Amino acid sequence: MTPISTLGEFGLIQHLTESFPIQHDFTVKTIGDDAAIVACPEGKVNVFSTDLLLEGVHFDLAYMPLKHLGYKAVIVNLSDIYAMNAQPYGITVSIGMSNRFPVEAMEELYEGIKLACDKYKIDLLGGDTSTSKQGLLISVTAFGYGEKEKIVYRKGAKANDLICVTGDLGAAYAGFLVLEREKVEFTENPEIQPDLSEYEYVVGRQLKPECRGKLLELLNEKNVLPTSMMDISDGLASELHHICSQSGCGATIYADKLPIDVETVKVAEEFQISEVTFAMNGGEDYEYLFTADISAFNVLKEIPEITIIGHITPDAGKIDIVLGPTQIASVEAQGWRHF
Amino acid sequence: MTPISTLGEFGLIQHLTESFPIQHDFTVKTIGDDAAIVACPEGKVNVFSTDLLLEGVHFDLAYMPLKHLGYKAVIVNLSDIYAMNAQPYGITVSIGMSNRFPVEAMEELYEGIKLACDKYKIDLLGGDTSTSKQGLLISVTAFGYGEKEKIVYRKGAKANDLICVTGDLGAAYAGFLVLEREKVEFTENPEIQPDLSEYEYVVGRQLKPECRGKLLELLNEKNVLPTSMMDISDGLASELHHICSQSGCGATIYADKLPIDVETVKVAEEFQISEVTFAMNGGEDYEYLFTADISAFNVLKEIPEITIIGHITPDAGKIDIVLGPTQIASVEAQGWRHF
Repeated sequence: MTPISTLGEFGLIQHLTESFPIQHDFTVKTIGDDAAIVACPEGKVNVFSTDLLLEGVHFDLAYMPLKHLGYKAVIVNLSDIYAMNAQPYGITVSIGMSNRFPVEAMEELYEGIKLACDKYKIDLLGGDTSTSKQGLLISVTAFGYGEKEKIVYRKGAKANDLICVTGDLGAAYAGFLVLEREKVEFTENPEIQPDLSEYEYVVGRQLKPECRGKLLELLNEKNVLPTSMMDISDGLASELHHICSQSGCGATIYADKLPIDVETVKVAEEFQISEVTFAMNGGEDYEYLFTADISAFNVLKEIPEITIIGHITPDAGKIDIVLGPTQIASVEAQGWRHF
Repeated sequence: MTPISTLGEFGLIQHLTESFPIQHDFTVKTIGDDAAIVACPEGKVNVFSTDLLLEGVHFDLAYMPLKHLGYKAVIVNLSDIYAMNAQPYGITVSIGMSNRFPVEAMEELYEGIKLACDKYKIDLLGGDTSTSKQGLLISVTAFGYGEKEKIVYRKGAKANDLICVTGDLGAAYAGFLVLEREKVEFTENPEIQPDLSEYEYVVGRQLKPECRGKLLELLNEKNVLPTSMMDISDGLASELHHICSQSGCGATIYADKLPIDVETVKVAEEFQISEVTFAMNGGEDYEYLFTADISAFNVLKEIPEITIIGHITPDAGKIDIVLGPTQIASVEAQGWRHF
């Protein structure tokens, strides 16, 4: 193992970033000067977002390989750019790490960052690398371009709009619970290697999330412009509250419409928690919650990765979930209360 | 003191950021959605930079008030945008803090951030706030606009160019040494309050640096476009190496031309270190090192805050400092070796 001090800060950054090609012709200068330079394509608006990932708070290196962590750190940031109906093109990455990490650990982290950059055509525009007193932290800022008229905010939902989600919900949280359970078992009995083969999907959703950028592109192609949108990072319940609060409306959703993978249902049963709780309050799926005018119904129902789960109501702040023919509950930002 | 948990993450961000007005008409949306939206003014290029400040590595709360820290965290980032001969307009700020910090501490930090934003007309575009396992960290990304033809890189210096610096050098390092000395004395004898009145200038340079943006604007007005430029954050010696290495040239500078404040000289004497060492290797002054064609001589010599300290030579990588009539030394990235 190579101590980072053998390369020094400049040497380390150069070593880690030399294999990142420039992906966009509007990117003029990336790493190696005081700042990055990116031309503004005509008629576009800039879209910026930033996220901080801290060891022991947002990730646990006991079961999160560094390569996956690097990948995920990029994805969670790109997800915010897509959530504005814009296209991400670049990131800056700042990393603080204690001297317990050798150069090889940084290489693994950057391998994951590079995988995500290659897959999503992202330029590494810059960054900062520093020793920390304790632990690992990653701060990523994402840069994107959008068309001003097509930017979708949280605030545009209106009564009778359809409420839709992409993909399925709760799987990343199910994966988290499985990994935490295996960690405890491994700590108690280090001889036994965990067998996660039955949980591949949910564990993958936790460790290696992807962005639904292509799906949003498809909506654009089909001329469906959501009236409001955000990515589901804190759980559907919390995000519904954001949309309704900023749009000044309410929502009714249907528990039996929530898209939940069979593996998520299995884990929910194992933990004796309702799978609806997983879908409503499990975070980190990085799917999208959006609303669309009812005229988009025919287009939306033909796209398999999109599920219509309810509709917007005029009752500001009133968010209900229909659990059964006679059972309606009020959705709180975390959890929901039965009437 | 109010624990942060009483407000929650969203409440805290809203509380801390509600007093930040939008300063630019091209800023469409700041905090409160998945990402910020900023229109691209016609013909401009984007300029981006990011910096990470970690407690115990980049700052010491024993003598760095949180308000100053917030201010400095903004300044060091704006400095990088100005160093490209561009104009900063926005920042994102991510903060990680352990639960030893109450809401009042965050308010103080944001007060400093707001002071800097007001003074330099900067929009707070977004951010992320999280608890950390230990200590305080601040990750800032700065956003600016420039004109493509007027962006100044590190790579443009050419033989016979004048080498210039703004302001004076070594004062921030002198302030650091004074503060460290007082900290040790205070730890040994907590009854005695430190008297820093004799060190106001150097301590101020360490705790509350400013950006020379207006000075660079003046150069633009006088039609002087530097051939290369960077901000002096790691010390003049290190930055000279960056300019020469990227420009494929060498440099000769003159020790007796280095602009050094009398208070810096006094501190250097107290610590029995040459003041030239302070100027060459002391970091964090956030002045600018730039090179300019010799035709700019008459303009440059009339500006009091600019000092011509030497000239560029064709000898790639050879950086000399003239210490006296018969004494020349080779400048290393850190320190310099006598022949």
